[in-house]
Amino acid sequence: MPSSLSAEQQAEIEAARAQQAPTRRPTVAALEEILFQALPVLDHGFVRVVDYFGDDAAIVQAARVSYGKGTKKISDDRNLIRYLMRHRHSTPFEMCEIKLHVKLPIFVARQWIRHRTANVNEYSARYSILDREFYVPAPDQLAAQSTTNRQGRGDLLEGSAAERALNAIEKLSADAYAVYSDLLNEGEGADPSRPGLARELARMVLPTNWYTQWYWKIDLNNLFHFLSLRADSHAQYEIRVYADAIRDVVKRWCPIAHEAFEDYRMTGTAVSGPGLAVIKRLLAGENVTQEQSGLSKREWAELMETLGR
Amino acid sequence: MPSSLSAEQQAEIEAARAQQAPTRRPTVAALEEILFQALPVLDHGFVRVVDYFGDDAAIVQAARVSYGKGTKKISDDRNLIRYLMRHRHSTPFEMCEIKLHVKLPIFVARQWIRHRTANVNEYSARYSILDREFYVPAPDQLAAQSTTNRQGRGDLLEGSAAERALNAIEKLSADAYAVYSDLLNEGEGADPSRPGLARELARMVLPTNWYTQWYWKIDLNNLFHFLSLRADSHAQYEIRVYADAIRDVVKRWCPIAHEAFEDYRMTGTAVSGPGLAVIKRLLAGENVTQEQSGLSKREWAELMETLGR
Amino acid sequence: MPSSLSAEQQAEIEAARAQQAPTRRPTVAALEEILFQALPVLDHGFVRVVDYFGDDAAIVQAARVSYGKGTKKISDDRNLIRYLMRHRHSTPFEMCEIKLHVKLPIFVARQWIRHRTANVNEYSARYSILDREFYVPAPDQLAAQSTTNRQGRGDLLEGSAAERALNAIEKLSADAYAVYSDLLNEGEGADPSRPGLARELARMVLPTNWYTQWYWKIDLNNLFHFLSLRADSHAQYEIRVYADAIRDVVKRWCPIAHEAFEDYRMTGTAVSGPGLAVIKRLLAGENVTQEQSGLSKREWAELMETLGR
Amino acid sequence: MPSSLSAEQQAEIEAARAQQAPTRRPTVAALEEILFQALPVLDHGFVRVVDYFGDDAAIVQAARVSYGKGTKKISDDRNLIRYLMRHRHSTPFEMCEIKLHVKLPIFVARQWIRHRTANVNEYSARYSILDREFYVPAPDQLAAQSTTNRQGRGDLLEGSAAERALNAIEKLSADAYAVYSDLLNEGEGADPSRPGLARELARMVLPTNWYTQWYWKIDLNNLFHFLSLRADSHAQYEIRVYADAIRDVVKRWCPIAHEAFEDYRMTGTAVSGPGLAVIKRLLAGENVTQEQSGLSKREWAELMETLGR
Repeated sequence: MPSSLSAEQQAEIEAARAQQAPTRRPTVAALEEILFQALPVLDHGFVRVVDYFGDDAAIVQAARVSYGKGTKKISDDRNLIRYLMRHRHSTPFEMCEIKLHVKLPIFVARQWIRHRTANVNEYSARYSILDREFYVPAPDQLAAQSTTNRQGRGDLLEGSAAERALNAIEKLSADAYAVYSDLLNEGEGADPSRPGLARELARMVLPTNWYTQWYWKIDLNNLFHFLSLRADSHAQYEIRVYADAIRDVVKRWCPIAHEAFEDYRMTGTAVSGPGLAVIKRLLAGENVTQEQSGLSKREWAELMETLGR
Repeated sequence: MPSSLSAEQQAEIEAARAQQAPTRRPTVAALEEILFQALPVLDHGFVRVVDYFGDDAAIVQAARVSYGKGTKKISDDRNLIRYLMRHRHSTPFEMCEIKLHVKLPIFVARQWIRHRTANVNEYSARYSILDREFYVPAPDQLAAQSTTNRQGRGDLLEGSAAERALNAIEKLSADAYAVYSDLLNEGEGADPSRPGLARELARMVLPTNWYTQWYWKIDLNNLFHFLSLRADSHAQYEIRVYADAIRDVVKRWCPIAHEAFEDYRMTGTAVSGPGLAVIKRLLAGENVTQEQSGLSKREWAELMETLGR
Repeated sequence: MPSSLSAEQQAEIEAARAQQAPTRRPTVAALEEILFQALPVLDHGFVRVVDYFGDDAAIVQAARVSYGKGTKKISDDRNLIRYLMRHRHSTPFEMCEIKLHVKLPIFVARQWIRHRTANVNEYSARYSILDREFYVPAPDQLAAQSTTNRQGRGDLLEGSAAERALNAIEKLSADAYAVYSDLLNEGEGADPSRPGLARELARMVLPTNWYTQWYWKIDLNNLFHFLSLRADSHAQYEIRVYADAIRDVVKRWCPIAHEAFEDYRMTGTAVSGPGLAVIKRLLAGENVTQEQSGLSKREWAELMETLGR
Repeated sequence: MPSSLSAEQQAEIEAARAQQAPTRRPTVAALEEILFQALPVLDHGFVRVVDYFGDDAAIVQAARVSYGKGTKKISDDRNLIRYLMRHRHSTPFEMCEIKLHVKLPIFVARQWIRHRTANVNEYSARYSILDREFYVPAPDQLAAQSTTNRQGRGDLLEGSAAERALNAIEKLSADAYAVYSDLLNEGEGADPSRPGLARELARMVLPTNWYTQWYWKIDLNNLFHFLSLRADSHAQYEIRVYADAIRDVVKRWCPIAHEAFEDYRMTGTAVSGPGLAVIKRLLAGENVTQEQSGLSKREWAELMETLGR
């Protein structure tokens, strides 16, 4: 359990977990197992499954627009689901829905929210006071700017350089919270002789490594799209770890759809028309070079990397 | 039960209803009661609740971004939900989701699908053969064109005029299905000496009173928007009856949110700035006429109707 | 020009084309050339470009969030746009928008509308009377049901079978319009002794090969998604011809983005992780069979077809 | 012109403004006048219109699905547009589209992005280095927490309290940028003896009063929805000033639709069914009290405020 949960919050979660009721809806035992639990991510963040509906069978049922459970055999379900995934027949996957409670740094939240096909309720810092919780990268994530990729990381910082960076992030964060508290001038230790600043203004001094939290609800098709972009190796590490935690959730929830997603979206690749022509020539035993390929240098390099050559 | 369900379909539904499993998710007993059942609409249509998640408490929980159940007292929940509805804080209502199986005439489906914030899987007439099921208005719905509203109905047709219209609709529908079947030339009674036409082509002769069906999934906020437009008195009767059936479903599912919706959206009204100025003058005892009001004749007439004057 | 335009409509279009005004907005000469013109599709349908904004440079400008025109050299623009397309950085393509006026059969409209990320205004048959215009397939499109693909076409119908089908479609369509007119009982030839049926009801007897029309507005990214699905060989012919007409429009509008789209989406392919492993083994000279591949028979067959083996 | 534009940016804007080309598309002279210009908002922010299509006539044209310009008389257009607005026939308003370049503090951007029905390209702080530009409230905006509204402002801070707050915000912001620059360790004054931190990490120390910028594209209907929420008196001042700037833009662009929007959405009000019943009783001369009204105290108070009683 992440230390970020207070005893009271932990008790609320346990109380919710202790309750059960009978339902006619499809249930997924493997997902019920972890329902409401905070799955830790980063230093203070988490992902909690708050609700869900649908399962692998619901995807089949929707594809068939059937009255009952869809096909009878698991192997038929698997073939159909893989076929749907392969041919981007995406609507049946939209028939499964999940609701998560996520705690995450603001700069991660700002990338995350770019996915518009989801429902969001965020904790309001206009209304409430934020806790003193901010993200500090672990030493194995403290990397220099990449020299080859303008939006990526390169070598790890080491020794005094790492220490200097960590200290600077921590000190600035601590200072920011002190200013925030001083501006608010609320609660214990408040100075009754002066008015505090409105919450909606005071919050502006907190850096984007501050933790926020939200309820986030999305269907499985759009979740797969989110994961394919945010679990990708080009995504920033700090959002990728959330995407990875959610992939594990999906594996529990819809294992067949999850497997198809991993095969077709995560470990698969898209090949362009000219790239496909190159592959065919290579398979025919031709010795193709970049110059003969019709591909730009960059496209050629990416294709060769994909093919492991 | 509508006659449109075959014995086999009815059995599938009963089998699904007979199964129960424990869940940690919130459940709504009043909705579980009717889960999977076909609620009849029009002559062969229905609405079936296939899945749901969330309840009134989930709206509160999302508005508070809380770990447990939100507020403790029902009266607090009610006040908060009404406040959210009144001030169009719509995102917490998006945290409830429902999936329906709907059977409906194509011309109704074409109005329905204009609501884009929903997920849909429709029965495919490219892939499958449609049944011989078409909508014929009941006698009390067979109305003449309205003389005052270009998109509305006026007086009922009576006697021979009504009979003539009903017969014409029924005969054309029957003829169309005969042509469809003849074009397909499949199954029992098929003529082996000639090829049938592809299903994706043959279907084009069926009129838009033909029944189709789909799985339709939507969140409560967008459902309210759908209902406010389609349960409105300006909506065509044939879609309004579906909207009314769904309002009953929502009443079972989220009774507090349903009540707020009825009060603020269905029985309430929007008043323009100039209209509000008129109301204030009237309340002050002034005798306002259309000419003095700044409203056009039509706006004035609509306002007076709203005020029951 | 399609015969479906009346002289009056044609005159309105010519009048609109005759007007020009200076603008500071980016303009695309090749698209202005065909602006407002009806590009014929099927027997009575068309696509007309009614408005547009953005061009290839606007994609670059948005990707750079720049104050002026983005990069200076065309070759840089091309590399950037291809990079964006390759890596599914789709948001800059959303900065171009187009508005079309489309006339199309109802059964095509029903497939088309499934793309939700567009704006639509459809001609209302509740409000207005539909013309006598319906789609009849050309002889080279009158095909039997495919025996291998449940949602596809097989061999062409020939001789008397074709004639029989065409006649049946035409006769049913003519009958339907006669019933529709009789039910309406409006205008010339109306029988004053009996009331007509409301338009919103009478329309229900018209088959789905009836032509409707709408204004349809979409951004370039979502248009590409639409085209990738509807210009695909698995799409029904009757919608594919619209998609093809729009591809030509996009080629005039954003030629660089169009080329990237054709290379990466239309002629390219998606390969699964297991499929990629097979390609690598084949490239390494290994003789892989389906049994050794880890792919199902169907996945294997599709991969071999893609690779032209 | 806001001081936030560099001379180079200003020159790019002027160069873009200097270019004109003829177009067949509808143009709006009043909007062309300010095209590309930065309209200043807050201390360093702005709104710039980068592109647009459609005008009041396009709304009418879409509502009519017409070939030419829609109705002929301005007064007819006005009546139709007001009718559409009054009855929430929103789709014709979606046929106008606008693209803005906006510079705004991150905490404002986070509220803004909650409107999902828009397209966005934001300046990337993973890729680029942010300028030293942060928001500091003007003295007349430095307010205490409201004592009656948990998410609002109360009395202005004065004298030393105001000074203390301003100084604290400015100092923390300056400190944060110093840490950011030190972490990056790039460019002039960089220390070659140590590696800098990756941009995507270093940025996390910047507070949410930092300015970011984006291209933002939206249709007129969804823009009205955005404005009705963000120009509302309950919205935070710092986003309201952007909404107000955009209202002026819309007034230039689609003056008739703008007027209807102001009358029906901005100065108008929604009345609940029980509230409407109260108004009717008051108009009938009855002396209604809260207790007799069926309204809660809060609902009653809000209604009386609306009615100016």
